Order: sequence, then C-alpha cells, then structure tokens
Amino acid sequence: MDSKNLIRFLFLTFIIALLLLLTLTTLPYNLPLTTNPRAALLAASTIKQPPKPTTRLHTSDVPHHPLDPLTLPELNKLRSILLSHALFQNSNTYALHSVVLHEPDKALVLAWNHGDALPPRKASVIARVNGEAHVLTVDISIGEVTPVDVGHHSGYPTMTIDDMTSSTWAPLGDAEFNRTIMARGVDLKDLACLPISLGWFGKKEENRRLIKIQCYSMEGTANFYMRPIEGLTVVLDMDTKQVVEITDKGRNIPIPKAAGTDYRFSAQNTKTNLVNPISIEQPKGPSFTIENDHLVKWANWEFHLKPDPRAGVVVSRARVRDPNTGELRNVMYKGFTSELFVPYMDPTDAWYFKTYMDAGEYGFGLQAMPLDPLNDCPRNAHYMDGVFAAGDGKPYVRENMVCVYESYAGDIGWRHSESPITGMEIREVRPKVTLVVRMAASVANYDYIVDWEFQTDGLIRVKVGLSGILMVKGTSYDHMNQVNQPENLHGTLLSENVLGVIHDHYITFYLDMDVDGPDNSFVKVNLKRETTSQGESPRLSYIKAVRDVAKTEKDAQVKLKLYDPSEYHIVNPSKTTRVGNPVGYKLVPGGTAASLLDLDDPPQKRGAFTNNQIWVTPYNRSEEWAGGLFTYQSQGDDTLAVWSQRDRAIENKDIVMWYTLGFHHVPCQEDYPIMPTVSSSFDLKPVNFYESNPILNIPPHFEKDLPVCNAAAAAV
Amino acid sequence: MDSKNLIRFLFLTFIIALLLLLTLTTLPYNLPLTTNPRAALLAASTIKQPPKPTTRLHTSDVPHHPLDPLTLPELNKLRSILLSHALFQNSNTYALHSVVLHEPDKALVLAWNHGDALPPRKASVIARVNGEAHVLTVDISIGEVTPVDVGHHSGYPTMTIDDMTSSTWAPLGDAEFNRTIMARGVDLKDLACLPISLGWFGKKEENRRLIKIQCYSMEGTANFYMRPIEGLTVVLDMDTKQVVEITDKGRNIPIPKAAGTDYRFSAQNTKTNLVNPISIEQPKGPSFTIENDHLVKWANWEFHLKPDPRAGVVVSRARVRDPNTGELRNVMYKGFTSELFVPYMDPTDAWYFKTYMDAGEYGFGLQAMPLDPLNDCPRNAHYMDGVFAAGDGKPYVRENMVCVYESYAGDIGWRHSESPITGMEIREVRPKVTLVVRMAASVANYDYIVDWEFQTDGLIRVKVGLSGILMVKGTSYDHMNQVNQPENLHGTLLSENVLGVIHDHYITFYLDMDVDGPDNSFVKVNLKRETTSQGESPRLSYIKAVRDVAKTEKDAQVKLKLYDPSEYHIVNPSKTTRVGNPVGYKLVPGGTAASLLDLDDPPQKRGAFTNNQIWVTPYNRSEEWAGGLFTYQSQGDDTLAVWSQRDRAIENKDIVMWYTLGFHHVPCQEDYPIMPTVSSSFDLKPVNFYESNPILNIPPHFEKDLPVCNAAAAAV
Repeated sequence: MDSKNLIRFLFLTFIIALLLLLTLTTLPYNLPLTTNPRAALLAASTIKQPPKPTTRLHTSDVPHHPLDPLTLPELNKLRSILLSHALFQNSNTYALHSVVLHEPDKALVLAWNHGDALPPRKASVIARVNGEAHVLTVDISIGEVTPVDVGHHSGYPTMTIDDMTSSTWAPLGDAEFNRTIMARGVDLKDLACLPISLGWFGKKEENRRLIKIQCYSMEGTANFYMRPIEGLTVVLDMDTKQVVEITDKGRNIPIPKAAGTDYRFSAQNTKTNLVNPISIEQPKGPSFTIENDHLVKWANWEFHLKPDPRAGVVVSRARVRDPNTGELRNVMYKGFTSELFVPYMDPTDAWYFKTYMDAGEYGFGLQAMPLDPLNDCPRNAHYMDGVFAAGDGKPYVRENMVCVYESYAGDIGWRHSESPITGMEIREVRPKVTLVVRMAASVANYDYIVDWEFQTDGLIRVKVGLSGILMVKGTSYDHMNQVNQPENLHGTLLSENVLGVIHDHYITFYLDMDVDGPDNSFVKVNLKRETTSQGESPRLSYIKAVRDVAKTEKDAQVKLKLYDPSEYHIVNPSKTTRVGNPVGYKLVPGGTAASLLDLDDPPQKRGAFTNNQIWVTPYNRSEEWAGGLFTYQSQGDDTLAVWSQRDRAIENKDIVMWYTLGFHHVPCQEDYPIMPTVSSSFDLKPVNFYESNPILNIPPHFEKDLPVCNAAAAAV
Repeated sequence: MDSKNLIRFLFLTFIIALLLLLTLTTLPYNLPLTTNPRAALLAASTIKQPPKPTTRLHTSDVPHHPLDPLTLPELNKLRSILLSHALFQNSNTYALHSVVLHEPDKALVLAWNHGDALPPRKASVIARVNGEAHVLTVDISIGEVTPVDVGHHSGYPTMTIDDMTSSTWAPLGDAEFNRTIMARGVDLKDLACLPISLGWFGKKEENRRLIKIQCYSMEGTANFYMRPIEGLTVVLDMDTKQVVEITDKGRNIPIPKAAGTDYRFSAQNTKTNLVNPISIEQPKGPSFTIENDHLVKWANWEFHLKPDPRAGVVVSRARVRDPNTGELRNVMYKGFTSELFVPYMDPTDAWYFKTYMDAGEYGFGLQAMPLDPLNDCPRNAHYMDGVFAAGDGKPYVRENMVCVYESYAGDIGWRHSESPITGMEIREVRPKVTLVVRMAASVANYDYIVDWEFQTDGLIRVKVGLSGILMVKGTSYDHMNQVNQPENLHGTLLSENVLGVIHDHYITFYLDMDVDGPDNSFVKVNLKRETTSQGESPRLSYIKAVRDVAKTEKDAQVKLKLYDPSEYHIVNPSKTTRVGNPVGYKLVPGGTAASLLDLDDPPQKRGAFTNNQIWVTPYNRSEEWAGGLFTYQSQGDDTLAVWSQRDRAIENKDIVMWYTLGFHHVPCQEDYPIMPTVSSSFDLKPVNFYESNPILNIPPHFEKDLPVCNAAAAAV
C-alpha cells in the first residue's frame, strides 16, 4: 500500500469510526428527537452527512444573471421572510420541499442584456405546512409572499432529505420490527434501510404520505445492497413516522454472503493495473470560461448552467455563434432531466411497487453527490457547486456537484482523403473536441451520469450513463439447476442467493427549443417507400422524404417506428436559409427501449409520459415536470400525457419538445457487485440551421501546439 | 501563415505541380498505353499516385503468426509462381483481383501456439484470365497452384485499382464524349471523372463487365464532387474500354459554382481556431504492444489485427483474460466489415443505378488511405501499414493504413457514491480507458471511419463514422421557392444548383463469435409483457424474459422490433457460470435504420443481406462476403440471404453472426461542402461471461501518476 492509499485507508477508517459515534445533531437541520435508544447506533449507517467544507463558502455570492440560482445569502433572506410569515408562524410542523429560483418570464430573460439590472429576484417555494402543500412565490427583495394556485392534483411534493433519512430509522421505534430483524439473525448495528417510494396502487394507500422501508445487512461489506433481508417491507406514515404495516414473507430466504461484494479500492485484496496513466492535457489551458459562476462560454457556444435540486442540472439559453454573421443564435431556451421512471418487473409482494420516479420523488439534484476529481471527470475539469435549501430552509452547499470539461477522445470532426481512384494528394482531417457538462446522481443504489455534450458543429448530445449498484432480490436458490422455470425468476441469478431483477429506465428530457426565436414548428420528415410506375425506372422503389408539420399536440405524439421512420425537426417557420430551407434542429433518437407495461397499469398511468418517445407541447411555464408537479404517490392525473391530450395548437408557437431515453435492463453477472457503465444518448443536431458546414475553417492539430509532457516525479 | 503552414502550402503547391506533369509511368504497374493525347493531362486529376515512400520498406518482413497477411517477399514469390504457371503464361490479358492469405483451417490456427512452426503459407487468389474468373489457392513454399471450385454465380470480382483508374480516362478516347464535355463549357483539363459501379438491372447489362462514368469540373476547387456535370453518363466496357453508350440528359442544368466548396485548410480565406490545443498524454507510454506487427496485446485483451484489401481490417482471435483464472478466453475468432450497401433514392436516369457495394465492388481496404497523424488518430497512436498486391501482382505498401491507440475521453468505467439517504462517505469511481483500432476508407467521395474499440470490461464496440463528401446532383433550382413539390426533389437543396440526394448506408459485419470455444448457440431473450391474473398483484403487468434458442438459420433471421424487443445472446451451451448461467456475449444493436426498398427491387435483391439486421449461419469458410464472392454486377444469387434460406442447423455449432448497421441520410446544408462525422455503433458485450464485474479491482486515477506538461516551445 503506497502512502496515498494508506492515507485513504486511514481516512476511511476514521470516517467509519466517526459514523459510529455520530448523533442526530450532525444533520444539517433538526429532526424530531427519537426516543429509541438504538436509533443513535442505527443512525451511523443511514445518517446523512453534513456537506463537507467547500473550498468556496458562497456566503457572499451575488446573482449576475436573471437565471442564476438563488444564492446562499438569498436563501438565508428567504428563510427569514418565510419564518416571519403568518403561514409558518402559526404552524407546528412545516418543511420546505422545494426552494428554487422563480425564473423571470421568458420575455424578460430574452430582453435582458449583460450589464442590465436583474429582474426582481423571486423564489418558488413548495412547502408543506400542517400537512398541506403550498406553492408560493416569494419576492426576496420586498419580502412579499404570494400563494400560487396550481389546481388540485393527487400526490405529494418531492421528499426532503429529512423525510428520507428519518423514515429509514423510524421502524427501529417499533418492537415488532426489531424482533423481525433479529429473527433474521441481523444485528441491529449492522442494519441499513432504504426509503422506497411506494407508487400508487389504489384507495388503500391514498390520503396519507406513506413510504415503504426495506432493509439490508451491512455486516462485512460497504455494499449492503447485495445483502437484502428479503421479503421484509415496512409501510410507514412519513408524517407521523408510525409503522402502518410490517410484512415479512422472506424468512426462508438467506441473506446473501458479504464476500466479494465490496467494491471499494481499499477493500480489494488484489489490485490489477490494466493500463498506464492517461490524461487529457491542454497546454494553453481550457478554451472555456464560466462567467460569474454560471455563464459558460466555449468555442462557438454560450449557455447558462445551474444545479437544480429536482432536475440535476439545467442548461438555459443555449446559443451558438454563426460563423457567417458572427451572431449568437438561439437554439434551446431550457433543457433538463424532467423525470425518470424506473419500473421493476416483479409483481410479487415486496417488489411490485418499485416503480421509481427519481426526480419527482427523490430529487435528482438532491441525490447528486460531489464528483470525484480525476475519475468522475478528467484532470482538466472545472467544478461547480450546488447551493440548495434543506427542509428547514437553511442553505447548504453541495460541493463539486457539476463538472465542465473539454473532451478529446481521438475522434474525427470531419475528414476526407482522396481515394486511389482519383489519386489526388488530399488528406484533410479535423479532430473533434467537445465540451462536456456532467453530473452524477446516486439515487440510493443506482448512479445516473448525465452529460450535456456540446460540439463545435452545433450538435448537442445528451448522454445518460447508468452505473452504481443493482437493486437485488434475495432468493433461496444458489444455482440455476434448482430452478424449473427460469423465466419466472423475474431476473438473473447473479451470485448465490442474489437475483438481479429485470427493470427499465426511462429518462424524460424537457427541451424547450427556441430555434432562432421562440416560435417554432415540429415537423416530421417521414421516410416512406415510394414505388415507381411501370417503365418509369429500372428501379422498383426508393425512399421519399415527406414533410408533415404538426398542427396540434396529438400530431406530435410520436412512437418511433423502425420500418416507418421519420426525422423529427424543430424548425423556425419564419426563417429560411439562403436557398430557402427552413432553419431547424432535429432530434436524433437513441436508446430506444419503449415501455411494455399495460397502459392501465397504475405505474404506467403515473409514468404515462413514457407512452410516447416524443411529445411536443406549447410552452407553459407550469408544465415542466413530466410526471406532474407533485409526483410522490401521484395517480397520473398531472402528467405530460394528460397535458398533451388537450391537443393544443403547436404550429409556429413557442413549443417544448420532450424526449424519453429508454433502457431495458436484464441484469447479468457482470453487474455484480457493481455495474460497468451502460450509456445511451440522443442528439439535437442542426439541420439546415447553418448555410453550410460551420466548422469548415477550423485548423487541424499541429505537433507544435501539443504539450511537452514528462512522467510525473512520483511515477519514476 | 506560420512556418508550418507555409511548408504545408509549398508542399501542396509542389504536389499539385507534380500532378500536372505526371505521366502514366508513375502508376505502380503498367497500363495499356492510350493513344489519346489528352489522357496525359487528364491523368493529372484522376491518376492513382504511387504509394508514398514508407518509413518501413517491408522488404524483409517475415510472417510470425498463422494469420499474418502475406508479406512483401511472399507476394513477390507468389507473383513469380503465377507468372510461370501455364494459366498465366498462355494468356494475353490477366489481372489479379484479390491476393490475400489463404487462412489455415480454424482447427490448425486454434492449435497453433507461439513458437510452433507456421502452417504452410498459402495465398488465395482471384484472377481474371482472358475474361474468365479463376479462384486459386497457391502454396507459396512449394509453388503449387490449385484451382478452387466456387460454383457458378453471377457477378465479377472486385475491381482492381487499374480497372477504376483506367475506366475514368477511357471516355476521353471517344470524340462524342469530348464534344459533350466541351459543349457543357468544361475544359478537358478541368475534367474529373468517377467510375461508378452500375449494379444490375437485367439482361441488357449482363455478360460483360460494364461501368458507368460520370464527370465533374475541377475548375476552381479541389472539391470537384460539388460540381457535377449532371445527367451525363457514359456506359463503358471495363475490359475493352470501349464506350457502349453516352447519355446526356442534363444540358440545361448548370454546373454548380466552385466558390465555397474547397475544404482544404490551405484554401480557407479565414481560419477560426475555436479551441486550444488538447492531447491525450500517457506519461509512461502506451499500455499496448504489437508483437511481430500484428498481435495486439492490451490490458486484458489479445487479438490479431491485419489490413485486408476487401474488408479493410480483420480482427482475429480476440481473447480476453479472465481475472479469476488468469486464462485467455476466446470471444471472437474473426470479425470484419463484410459488405456495404449504399442505395441512393433517386429513380431517374443518371441516378437509379447508384446502389454501391463498397467492399465487394471497390475493395474497402483498397480505398483506405494513409491516416493523418494527430488528426485521424491522436498523438499517442501506433500505425500499421497495409501490404497489398496490385492488379499485376506487384506488391505495394499502403502506409499508416490502420492506427491503434488508447482513448480516454473523461468517461466513467463504473462508479458509486453513497447518496444523502445513507450518508455513507463513499465515492468510488473508475475512469474508462479503451483501445481503439481505426481505419478510414475513402470510397471516392465518402469517407467511412471504422473503429473496433475494446473495453477492459470485456465489451467490444464497433463504430462506423461517416464523413467525407456527399454525392450531389446538379439542378437548375437555386432556391426552394422555385420548387412546387419538394418531396419530388429526391433530396435537399444544399446550395445553388446542388442537391444532396437521399441515400442509405448499410454496413454488414461478419462476426465469427467463438465464446469459450467454437460451438455456440444463438439465443433470443425475448422481453414480453406478462399480465398478472386477477388478485395476483396490485400490478397489472410486467416484463418477462423468455429464452428462445435458435435451432436453424431461419430462427435467427432477426428484424429488430422496438415494441417486441429481445436481447441477442451468443452462448456456449457447454459452459455455465458458477451459479449456472450459460456463458455468453450479447449483441447490442445500434444504428437501427432498416432498408425500405421493395424486396424484389434489383438493388435490394443484391443487397438482400440487409433484409434482416441479424443473421446467424453455421461457420463455412466460403461464406464470408455477405453480398457474394463476386459482387460486381451480381444478381443476388450468392448473398447471405440465399445461404440463410438453406436453414441449416445452428444450435451448439460453430456459428457466425452477421449484424448490419444502418443509416438513413437525408442531407442537410451542414453536409455542404464536407460532412461533419455522423457515427453509429453496436456492441458485443459479455453477458454472464464473467462471474462478476471483471474490472472490480482496477485502481482509480491518482494525481501522482499523471504527466507533468508544459506548453510546447513553439506555442509560447
């Protein structure tokens, strides 16, 4: 073990020791004290750590752009405003489930120029006060609190971190639960529990905020996810923290072994160095700047970037410079991960309800942890902190939540060599360098890596990587020769007593495209087989591209079809190129898994935004969350699918495109005990947006410009 | 202009000057002398240059591995053997259309170990002698020539470079052709012509080797492809070089302008440097070795790599080391680009026949030109030369035809951080470093970049990038407001008088998977919606994975279905993991365009190997080329589709999987005058091949291992 590793090891040991000693006071805000003496012990394994000290305190942050997120001082001021407001002063219990910038109206943002005064800074707050949800707009400068009527819908706001953490310990206050755990042979000090959103499956679970708790043994591994106490489910009232029901149908199922499950470097007995060190180096430094923390300027691109507790990251006002006019042209007003839908494919008691909606239920940004420099992002990355409000309104800093870096994988931007046929001595090649914006959210076991990748040719690639740890099921099987009907396992036997359950991932993106301005149209360019008439041609058939402009929302409910394909363009009908083509961007789908669930199945009703891969809606600032504003325990009455059924006009209007990336995941042994990343992506690609190739006149690489490198001193 | 650019400029100027002076004698082998005095001038624009001097002469190359390609000395010896053979001695005209290693039988190769004597070195030769095709096996050591009976099929062998180049000038011998060109206002010195395979459309074109020639004006641009002399097609007899027919239906169509078409850096008036220099650096050097020029060893992978005149590159004996046993395990015996099919979607006179099959007609490897260091591949790349035989059997070297490099794009191999829910202090991330094998073939206008990318987690990604220059159509339109029915244009107006014609690309890969040995089975793991019975579960539906082992070839003719999806596994039925799962690899499709042409359309009959995306055939060494051994003017009687209809048994046999990547390409203005690369890929991914994640114990990046870099001196 070299010195660095020794330090890592000592540090981890220290942290683990600390964890075992920690009490509730370490939480960033106060929780109701539990009277259960075991809770302090248990807390060690489930407690949320206070954010680590950041290199930046953010205590004197000042907003510079209308879309800049609320600063730490603003969050503090907001908290004072709320606490002195009647609604909160007269309440016994309250929690803030969402505190974010109330973005100024689009027209104001578009009209704003660098140097102008900022529009009034407002916050959008979702609070629960005495069990009721309130949506408020708060003018921070004048201290005005305005209730917002969002209509009546089923569901509850996104859980707070407190909701999640406190729920995981609450069962310890229940003697029956403790007996059950001990009956499984698990020491309470080794217990790790997870708060599992329970979806919605009818009347029984309505009218109160419930959560299901399932537990694992941490004995012998940091990877407790591989050691489920199978079949044990606690239904908990999230508000009262009372146990509603305990089901234990897994007593005959052993807890899988710990050996071989720990993935930490420090826990490996043997270490294999497969490759020599490799690094992306930029001798003259990066080519981007981030003005005032949030405005990214790189190559021909400029966009605003902010962490968001629900969406993860939000990319706004993405504009690209036209090489002919020098003008910055609008491409996308706002883009973000709107919702995730992760249904598991096991209808049995302890599994049927696992149909997560990670953004609306857990907060995709809340679950984004600090990135690991050199590994989550390369050495040349710049990091951005998230500043969020906890459930009690106190701000905290999520350090290094987002990274921005230039990537060069050795790929080719464009090329041509003349072939032996013509024999001309031409070899013209341009390397491809891109800018990546990355965050990684760890929604309990799973890790989602979301990249927004900008190319100099105007293309934006949105890539989602899946890694982390499977949610596995305990089983009494330890070999497939014991299994009569493998297809009834609902998954794959990954190791002795461990089943990886089949599941899907759907990640739905909100893409408010504003191609050269807000008013756009959605055009399906259908590629259809055309048959020639007798004698017309020696060819019998060819493909014809037929443009079909969507008039209303239903025209734009798209199910992708491999054998009846289309291109999907967002065009500006008021603007054409020099030779008269409509200026546009196209969506290039990828990761094409489609949900196969019954449309009437409760999870699919809630996740109905995955019924189509593409939707287009008219811009409506209240329609941002595909699963509804209040997703938790929602019944599917406020989804994108519901909005779209209104069939509003979308031609030559300010429109929003929604795209869903889908993955079917049948686990395999390679996913055990931690999954190699699987990625999929879609592209937003200029299509007759430019008059011609916009990177025609960029230079190739020249040797003289590349760095002169030596092995690091330590490496000799 | 800095000094480097000045040198480039002067060099290019020199080369262009040289080209204008070159005569036929510069060709690597002798062509029949033409009596047309203009041919010498014309040659300047179409002549194949002799291969540039290589840094390696290859004159003393020795084979070290049973699969090593024929060496330069072997090719010389082979030529002597053939020239002294009766077949050639008694002939007036002959040409060698293919000269490659006759690979030893698979069993011999599998039994061979490093240090063993090589099996007898043999060549597989396709020759045309006095107009007849002959397939020969030549034992180089003993000088034995054995004719091979390949049955009777339609079609001709792949064109030689001589066929292509000589055909382009041949029309100049025809007075009518010259008058036609001059009538279009094109000076003969500015003429560039292309040899266009004419497919097969019935009796009229049978029983002689024909080619169509279309021409362009080079005046004012190196990018003559953008200046078509539209509607002019010469039908030529490729053997006699006689003009069979001249059609000129485009006299009213102007030749598009040259301005803005030249893509060369030296031709740009303004140059825009969007990003600072960036480089992949490896302070301790690359992690791979290439033993004896062809055996690549990297990380846990080992494979044999060779350039091939028809396939481009061939990857053989890909094996990966098992982290548990240390053993090298077989994954793929042989993989390569078997055929390309590129039908254009315009049924009119000058376009209907453009339905290229780039490997079988032109030689995908023959068209691969030297890669451009620093731009085609990054600085840390190693290059491999191709050594091929010309039409007269003389060997020549294609320098730097293939590159091999390690790539690091800043991506993540696997990761997990513990979330705020559990609060454990875990952030474990492993960077993703891969090995890329690349070649780029320039089949006249188009450039195909083919990457074989190996990952440490056992995954092989095969990626095809499309760049280069569109094949465009001249039109009298210069604005879309002149067009009544845009869908009848067969493409997109890219610039004044330039139409980008809609077309497809299909790239079919031969994948002889040998997962832990030759005998494998193909399993469709169908994901089907299962409905629960009344009262079984609150869920109505879920996905079930049902395994279906393909018994015969027809079971394995797969059309991908988005709403009835499957995974496609190649498993070794004789081997299971510790817990009893069949050991396998799966094909993860990508780039899913499917051909929409009528199955009876002559091009689709010839390209019938694209009727399904996946096929599986029993291993048969004579079935390697999906479009048939003799593709040129073939009638579709020897394609993969025909072989597969025999419906042979494929269960637990040595089997070959075929996968087709497809692209629909509706051109857009961004593709003018040269196309930004569009890529698509598919994966071969371990699925229960390993007992667990094979890269669990690799280290993260540590700062101490990374290079210490400075800006290059010239960059200050």
